[in-house]
Amino acid sequence: MTRGGLGAGVPNAAVEALVADFSATAAVRDAAGGTAKRERDLIRESGLLRLSIPVELGGAGADWVETLGVVRRLASVDSSLAHVFAFHHLMLATFQFFGSPAQAQEFLRRTAQDGWFWGNALNPRDPRTQLQAVEGGYRLDGHKSFCSGASDSDMIIVSALDRETKALRVAAIPTRRDGVLVHGDWDNMGQRQTDSGTVSFDNVFVAESELLLSPGPLGSPFASLRPCLAQLVLTNIYLGLAQGALEQAKTYLHGAPAEIRERVGQDPYALRNFGELWVEIAAARALTDEAQRAFQQGWEAGADTTPELRGDIAVTIAAAKVASSRASVEVGSRIFDLMGARSTAAAHRFDRFWRNARTHTLHDPLDHKLRELGSFAFEGQFPTPSFYS
Amino acid sequence: MTRGGLGAGVPNAAVEALVADFSATAAVRDAAGGTAKRERDLIRESGLLRLSIPVELGGAGADWVETLGVVRRLASVDSSLAHVFAFHHLMLATFQFFGSPAQAQEFLRRTAQDGWFWGNALNPRDPRTQLQAVEGGYRLDGHKSFCSGASDSDMIIVSALDRETKALRVAAIPTRRDGVLVHGDWDNMGQRQTDSGTVSFDNVFVAESELLLSPGPLGSPFASLRPCLAQLVLTNIYLGLAQGALEQAKTYLHGAPAEIRERVGQDPYALRNFGELWVEIAAARALTDEAQRAFQQGWEAGADTTPELRGDIAVTIAAAKVASSRASVEVGSRIFDLMGARSTAAAHRFDRFWRNARTHTLHDPLDHKLRELGSFAFEGQFPTPSFYS
Amino acid sequence: MTRGGLGAGVPNAAVEALVADFSATAAVRDAAGGTAKRERDLIRESGLLRLSIPVELGGAGADWVETLGVVRRLASVDSSLAHVFAFHHLMLATFQFFGSPAQAQEFLRRTAQDGWFWGNALNPRDPRTQLQAVEGGYRLDGHKSFCSGASDSDMIIVSALDRETKALRVAAIPTRRDGVLVHGDWDNMGQRQTDSGTVSFDNVFVAESELLLSPGPLGSPFASLRPCLAQLVLTNIYLGLAQGALEQAKTYLHGAPAEIRERVGQDPYALRNFGELWVEIAAARALTDEAQRAFQQGWEAGADTTPELRGDIAVTIAAAKVASSRASVEVGSRIFDLMGARSTAAAHRFDRFWRNARTHTLHDPLDHKLRELGSFAFEGQFPTPSFYS
Amino acid sequence: MTRGGLGAGVPNAAVEALVADFSATAAVRDAAGGTAKRERDLIRESGLLRLSIPVELGGAGADWVETLGVVRRLASVDSSLAHVFAFHHLMLATFQFFGSPAQAQEFLRRTAQDGWFWGNALNPRDPRTQLQAVEGGYRLDGHKSFCSGASDSDMIIVSALDRETKALRVAAIPTRRDGVLVHGDWDNMGQRQTDSGTVSFDNVFVAESELLLSPGPLGSPFASLRPCLAQLVLTNIYLGLAQGALEQAKTYLHGAPAEIRERVGQDPYALRNFGELWVEIAAARALTDEAQRAFQQGWEAGADTTPELRGDIAVTIAAAKVASSRASVEVGSRIFDLMGARSTAAAHRFDRFWRNARTHTLHDPLDHKLRELGSFAFEGQFPTPSFYS
Repeated sequence: MTRGGLGAGVPNAAVEALVADFSATAAVRDAAGGTAKRERDLIRESGLLRLSIPVELGGAGADWVETLGVVRRLASVDSSLAHVFAFHHLMLATFQFFGSPAQAQEFLRRTAQDGWFWGNALNPRDPRTQLQAVEGGYRLDGHKSFCSGASDSDMIIVSALDRETKALRVAAIPTRRDGVLVHGDWDNMGQRQTDSGTVSFDNVFVAESELLLSPGPLGSPFASLRPCLAQLVLTNIYLGLAQGALEQAKTYLHGAPAEIRERVGQDPYALRNFGELWVEIAAARALTDEAQRAFQQGWEAGADTTPELRGDIAVTIAAAKVASSRASVEVGSRIFDLMGARSTAAAHRFDRFWRNARTHTLHDPLDHKLRELGSFAFEGQFPTPSFYS
Repeated sequence: MTRGGLGAGVPNAAVEALVADFSATAAVRDAAGGTAKRERDLIRESGLLRLSIPVELGGAGADWVETLGVVRRLASVDSSLAHVFAFHHLMLATFQFFGSPAQAQEFLRRTAQDGWFWGNALNPRDPRTQLQAVEGGYRLDGHKSFCSGASDSDMIIVSALDRETKALRVAAIPTRRDGVLVHGDWDNMGQRQTDSGTVSFDNVFVAESELLLSPGPLGSPFASLRPCLAQLVLTNIYLGLAQGALEQAKTYLHGAPAEIRERVGQDPYALRNFGELWVEIAAARALTDEAQRAFQQGWEAGADTTPELRGDIAVTIAAAKVASSRASVEVGSRIFDLMGARSTAAAHRFDRFWRNARTHTLHDPLDHKLRELGSFAFEGQFPTPSFYS
Repeated sequence: MTRGGLGAGVPNAAVEALVADFSATAAVRDAAGGTAKRERDLIRESGLLRLSIPVELGGAGADWVETLGVVRRLASVDSSLAHVFAFHHLMLATFQFFGSPAQAQEFLRRTAQDGWFWGNALNPRDPRTQLQAVEGGYRLDGHKSFCSGASDSDMIIVSALDRETKALRVAAIPTRRDGVLVHGDWDNMGQRQTDSGTVSFDNVFVAESELLLSPGPLGSPFASLRPCLAQLVLTNIYLGLAQGALEQAKTYLHGAPAEIRERVGQDPYALRNFGELWVEIAAARALTDEAQRAFQQGWEAGADTTPELRGDIAVTIAAAKVASSRASVEVGSRIFDLMGARSTAAAHRFDRFWRNARTHTLHDPLDHKLRELGSFAFEGQFPTPSFYS
Repeated sequence: MTRGGLGAGVPNAAVEALVADFSATAAVRDAAGGTAKRERDLIRESGLLRLSIPVELGGAGADWVETLGVVRRLASVDSSLAHVFAFHHLMLATFQFFGSPAQAQEFLRRTAQDGWFWGNALNPRDPRTQLQAVEGGYRLDGHKSFCSGASDSDMIIVSALDRETKALRVAAIPTRRDGVLVHGDWDNMGQRQTDSGTVSFDNVFVAESELLLSPGPLGSPFASLRPCLAQLVLTNIYLGLAQGALEQAKTYLHGAPAEIRERVGQDPYALRNFGELWVEIAAARALTDEAQRAFQQGWEAGADTTPELRGDIAVTIAAAKVASSRASVEVGSRIFDLMGARSTAAAHRFDRFWRNARTHTLHDPLDHKLRELGSFAFEGQFPTPSFYS
């Protein structure tokens, strides 16, 4: 459905091997929840953790259009694994946005070399983590919720409030450092293998060199592209979910007894419903394609990124996100109209598309996104950069 | 939300006691699936199995408006139990529609006296069950799918094709008769405690007096009200699901920390979304109220029911069903926008409203219902009576 | 479509005579705009200006359910005339809500006796009219916009701000009094014969006995039912527009060549679309029926109306208004999908349903109505009485 | 709103000059209807009738992405003129699709040289025109409806059924040839200056060299791209209408008193509504951009166009058309929610966006387009080429 293959820099065979593997066990693993250790290791072995890393630093040199294309493809069969995979690359981008070039190079090089899998502990809405200066560095204490992919990760990026200034600080540290505890307490109705639970920090040491201070979080127009990428990750996961759900409906019906398939193929209402979902997905996809091309422009502009370019990118992504978010929930729910009553058998777990979409699309409210788009449409006002805009 | 209490004939305290009990365990039982034996026994003890039976035959004498009101109320906390409860009364209606007055009286009297719980094995879309004449009666062989409430039932109503004439026959027999096997194989993503699995019949004897032959299935305008009642049962379950989901969102937020409740109470978008769902539910409710008053008129008209009256009732119910069906799926999905990301924690099982609605609303396709309504709107043509219209 | 006739107190033949007459010329008069003098006189002659006046004061004694039923019926063929007719009765209600019983009786008696047609100059959003005490009474100066039905009226109800206290005052005065000028400047894309233009007041004398001071505007829970009735008037006009539009589509197609009618009658999509619009209208109608029964209860409760009863009525009407408002715009637009390209010929003026609905539904924004409903749904909070809630 | 300028081959200043001129009089001309003779002459003088003609034949050499971009831009201020302009270029494409290379070259060269404005008389749904062989050529007799742009045209393309074989024939002839009568009978609620009335033919001579026989209508995969271009023309007009309507709302509010503009700029609902319409338009635009790039590929492939390529193009265009069609009607109607009650004043004629969209989107039913998309989504089946698919 994505029309055309992934880019030149992407090892397509590796992606499709993961797709085939994940697809076969997605229902069972959705039932199980927990950490998909085996599948995370398959991702490690696939080499795709190096996908977005420049060739000269040991990576595959894919651009963001390509990297997000892989996220979308994975999400069509397993949106949990797509999420942890995407967040790994979002973390790689994070230190490129917030840290110094030297830090970024070093982290990228080590990631490529040592096969690091990065996890997230950055949730800026959770204010319970604090950083304070100590002899030779800093100490980190507190809790973070919604830490996707922290379990089984090698490195995490964590945010904390400076105990004195209350400024937001972001650091990259090894997950296995003393005092870091990944709780494994994620048990939700959807996105069940994203390990988006709590991480706690008990007197964890952080070195100066691990802080991303230059320019720091949202510290420049370029740095403020970071939430744009985060939103694009969500957008592609939603889109992949919608595409995967419709594909699932098709596959299921193609596998049904011939008379059912024939009846559907001649039923004016069934075909119209297929067409409706197709159009909704196509619109979300066209907007998302456009949005990630726009983002890539900003990425390439680097320090030359102006507030206007950043604003344009943010608006384009917001529209794509609204469309993809709605498509994921709608298609996840309406495929049952196509497949019929027997498709609700528990063993299929076809409700996982809706459950995953419904869970994930609560990340930040669409109404506020629409308001931002409205301010732009009415007065040309760009969204104020924040971790959600 | 239903405005006003249940009717005079309804033991409200008994209903509310069940509501309180079912509500407390609905999430856990949704996880467990299977037969809700304890709760079915609570229904037995409540006396509500006699609800729709005339006083003179030992019942509570509630009319259908009242009986369906109880279905709706139960569905707001547990749509599986509401379903088996409703199907019990639909079975009581079935022999009143299809059988002779003497048969009906006898079955009603025995039900009131012996506390029978009726289950369903009537699915006319499944043609695998056959009836043939044998010495002193008939024998029944084959399978039926989607037999809601057959497990733990005392009596079932079963349909079969006459082996010779291929005519549809309907009979009322004890569930524990030799050769009847209730498989307990229902395991679906929603409506998990409706026991809507398979029943098989292996050389099961059926007496002449157990066949509902006069006027038989859809054998008169009055008899053809039977599918109208079946559709009304679905309509009320959908409506109860929608009402229950919104109520759940409200309860959840009222139990949240004060600052969250306050924020929601002042958020223009959250309030607007609450309002949207309210209107959608109110419309479905108004149509359903109207539809069950219409049905009750037909019930009271009895043999005087004309095709025109039947047609009017069917049209009114169809509109209510479309509205309720959509409301149940939509509200079940959109409550998460109201409750936010934390409400997706698996323990809440708040997705059950959507899962139940999604599963149950696949009973028969809305598009065809809309087509029937369109034929009526355009040319005044009433739906042709069938088991789904 | 309204199922069943109008009430006993309503001279149905008179209503249907008006419907037939208005229907025949609605398209031509929509093109012409301006004051429908001939049709206003037909309304005068029909006796329907006395419809809601108690029998003992010379009226027909219809209740509000019946009176609003006539509004709805007229609106299905001519929503402009339905509007001025409805506003006449709203004015009759206004002095019953805001004035003393003695005033109300006198105005009602005179209306019945002298055949007065009342117009509106009450728009409380337009603050340009002022009242000040003078020798023997008051003087009124300023302008009012959106004064529906003021042209060719005998009496008007006008609101003004007290020059000193800034309190809102409401008075009933003859339209032809010195200093009152009805501008006839209404020329809008819809509702073209409602004469909803400007009225100006230049040193107009107002007697004490003409002021509605007891309890005054919104001066009691009962008085605050006045905006409820105003909203119900709008609701019924919207509903009538939606019903009339669908009826128009049907009539047009029934008059088309036989092969077109047959093709539509067999086209699954056309029928489905008819069904969709039918359901949307049915839902709006069921809510509106319910809402006007609720309002009638409040009317009958009179001074016993509690804030809770008033709140319940307001909520019920709000839901009906949202549904009817949307139905009128949607059906007015979608009937063309049913009728096809040739139905856009200018001579038909079939776009008038949408134009009328679109113009009239801007009276007060639905989003705010939804917010009010949301506050009620979430926290049981009733809308604060105002001229729009 | 279209982001980025028109292509290199497009004389932007000429386009913007037309936009400014048309915009200033669009409301008045919408009221007047009839042939926009002055504006058609402005189009002639602008040189844009040569836009899509290759440079070597005297044209501007714009590709279809550029040419359709001009259509879209014009449609945002005047969808009637955009339509006749677009149909001129569609006619130029028609003889390139259906005729021989030599015919095409000659017609293009003469068009560039003599400034011909082409009109349409091709409506294949109207079977009343017949062609028969006569001495030295053919004669044409009968009527055609919906002949957009035939008035004031220099050349028309006409279709007719061969009297003997009933095959569809298409010819290009001068509008002023003996026996051709353009009736000027178009008077519809929208698209009022498209002159889409009737043309009659009374013994009109047609030369062999004027028939487009090689490969003839839909006579090859490449020739069957002609309806794709026709659909793209509609798609761009719908999209332009939607964009123009939102732009109109913005312009109107920016011109309103400061307190109104400020209130809107802070109203969460107004902004959300702006955002909603923005997203709907953005989705339609992204799909349309994609669709016209796809079409251009087919155009460039020429005789190498395969059924698969043609199928892919058709599917892509169908999705864009569904989205644009809906956006045009929806935005045209909802802008009033943004602008408020005063914007309904007749003088503004802001209803023309909806009237134009509503009239034009009835060209061929969306439900069938959705069915075709459904067949593709479900079974990979391409739409069967026809004049509407």
